[in-house]
Amino acid sequence: MLSFKEKGIAIFNMADIEVNGNDPWDIQVHNDEFYERTFRGGPLAFGESYMDGWWSVESLDQFFTKIFNNSLEEKIKTYRLFLYYLKSILRNPQKGKGSIKVAEVHYNVGNNLYACMLDQRMVYTCGYWNKYKNLPSAGNLDEAQEHKLDMICQKIGLKKGDKVLDIGCGWGSFTHYAAEKYGAKCVGITISKEQLKYANEMKGDLPIEYRLEDYRDIDEKFDCIVSLGMFEHVGYKNYKTYMKTVYKNLKEDGLFLLQTIGTNVSVKHTDPWINKYIFPNSMLPSATQITKSIENLFLIEDWHNYGVQYDYTLMQWYKNFKKAWPQMKDKYDEQFYKMWEYYLLSSAATFRSRRSKLWQIVLSKQGNIVFD
Amino acid sequence: MLSFKEKGIAIFNMADIEVNGNDPWDIQVHNDEFYERTFRGGPLAFGESYMDGWWSVESLDQFFTKIFNNSLEEKIKTYRLFLYYLKSILRNPQKGKGSIKVAEVHYNVGNNLYACMLDQRMVYTCGYWNKYKNLPSAGNLDEAQEHKLDMICQKIGLKKGDKVLDIGCGWGSFTHYAAEKYGAKCVGITISKEQLKYANEMKGDLPIEYRLEDYRDIDEKFDCIVSLGMFEHVGYKNYKTYMKTVYKNLKEDGLFLLQTIGTNVSVKHTDPWINKYIFPNSMLPSATQITKSIENLFLIEDWHNYGVQYDYTLMQWYKNFKKAWPQMKDKYDEQFYKMWEYYLLSSAATFRSRRSKLWQIVLSKQGNIVFD
Repeated sequence: MLSFKEKGIAIFNMADIEVNGNDPWDIQVHNDEFYERTFRGGPLAFGESYMDGWWSVESLDQFFTKIFNNSLEEKIKTYRLFLYYLKSILRNPQKGKGSIKVAEVHYNVGNNLYACMLDQRMVYTCGYWNKYKNLPSAGNLDEAQEHKLDMICQKIGLKKGDKVLDIGCGWGSFTHYAAEKYGAKCVGITISKEQLKYANEMKGDLPIEYRLEDYRDIDEKFDCIVSLGMFEHVGYKNYKTYMKTVYKNLKEDGLFLLQTIGTNVSVKHTDPWINKYIFPNSMLPSATQITKSIENLFLIEDWHNYGVQYDYTLMQWYKNFKKAWPQMKDKYDEQFYKMWEYYLLSSAATFRSRRSKLWQIVLSKQGNIVFD
Repeated sequence: MLSFKEKGIAIFNMADIEVNGNDPWDIQVHNDEFYERTFRGGPLAFGESYMDGWWSVESLDQFFTKIFNNSLEEKIKTYRLFLYYLKSILRNPQKGKGSIKVAEVHYNVGNNLYACMLDQRMVYTCGYWNKYKNLPSAGNLDEAQEHKLDMICQKIGLKKGDKVLDIGCGWGSFTHYAAEKYGAKCVGITISKEQLKYANEMKGDLPIEYRLEDYRDIDEKFDCIVSLGMFEHVGYKNYKTYMKTVYKNLKEDGLFLLQTIGTNVSVKHTDPWINKYIFPNSMLPSATQITKSIENLFLIEDWHNYGVQYDYTLMQWYKNFKKAWPQMKDKYDEQFYKMWEYYLLSSAATFRSRRSKLWQIVLSKQGNIVFD
């Protein structure tokens, strides 16, 4: 019988990854117990052993792209993983207390960190580098994010005085842009106190109201609704509730723009490491899950797919994070650095390997809106 | 108790349609038995009584738009309709003999009729008037169809020498364009003998092979596959088989472009009148049905929605048909005229009322194709 180490080396070889090899995607194993730990503990142990410095890779994004392109993670099916999956089916982790855990773990981790990593408007979703209608290609992250925000305003046909809701408003980038450039009256809701604080500090005299609120509690009519990178926290058991809530709060002739990362295949959970350290109780929707959740509520007006650009965005965030690290060192430890690096670069790889997509979907009620 | 007539008048009034009124959308009832016939026979009797001249409307498309916008057809639920629905669930009408019935009833009705009605390339699907990348807006039907064909070639990244399959190739418009303008080698399959004959007559020296073949029988690898306005004949019970067939015949790095009319809500049948007189055994897919059928097979690269332009296209076809009618009178009778008019204008209304959509969906295999 092969040892854990022999088995591990053989699996890496399947994806052209050489243990202690010289290519930038080759894994350097610093502690041979890494193999057993991973085979027993699955993806969670894999990430944790990285954070512990048991292994390293020069280019983590290239390494993960090879892993995903060859579906290597399917070689490690543990009993623990099975229990984890089971839990995501039996519980509704995105309801009640569970739904705000991600704010504590992730979004409240420090506004300064995000300010260093993101563009000047603090947009924490995929940028848009391509041309869109009258917008030229973007030359850098700041432009890519401005263009993305503008593209959204164009897609929902935003007009002066329109009342817009942003579900999961982050640090207020969209609402700020919509109010500043289009003269919209905005409401932004978030479950993160840090985001709320920052957004309120930045809004100045703009007609924006920010609230610490769960989407289920909204009860107010809007001309347009957007939700950018928040649906990933909703959970499949709540998709219908989410869509019904948006439907209820959207005027008859209004448009709803949903931006979300999507997966190719329907699942009910996220990676256990991501779930523990980055986005607790998150999960990516599939096209099937989304279309099912909007049946009898919304019509699909437009479905725009641009996942590859999330790879660019994440690599840019990583570059910014790495550059700013010397100034952050006092607040965070070395393990945090490894964790954040693992998060950004493995995420970039999910887009590069085309396992994940980025969707902008424009939805309307059963009205007579002409979108195309 | 209200009489059939009183009930009928009241239902029309709900949609602002006045019986024997003066507006172009008002119904003129020439035989009062029309009401009972419709209440007993449902949508089939409604259409047949039109063909019999029992009622007329100056602007049938405006009339139907009002009907659909107000969901009037839901007021007529008959026992016969229930049986019809039941049959579509119990049987698989798009398998075996049932799958070629539409060729006999519709596509073989006369190439000359289609030549009079359609553009010069004989494209029998929705045109594209909007700008697309380097293509300007179209000024007329000929341009709108050329641009549509070119847009498809662009979307699948067609290159010289590529081997392309067109499932349901009609009179050969796409294959002809792809071979002529892009130097592609094409295979087109159809189940209509009339279409096959016409396509073969037109192809000249172009490297195109046309076949009378069912999609289930294809067994050959292609660089790209397209299917334009044929999925409406596949039937929900065969969607998975259809997608598996396309998957099997597409090279690993190839793209599949599916163009289909879609509905907002999942159904399993079409309107009984359309089923009897125009498209036997057809049914429109919903987004949910499509996404379900491609799970674990294809990735969604792009989903383009432009249904409103089918309204323009159909109105243009109607105009051409009406204009050419004097030359066709010898071959078809007055009832045929009414039938065709009812088909084109009620279809235009399904798009104008936004009940139906037109989708172009680009799908890839689990490869590393960069589409966006």
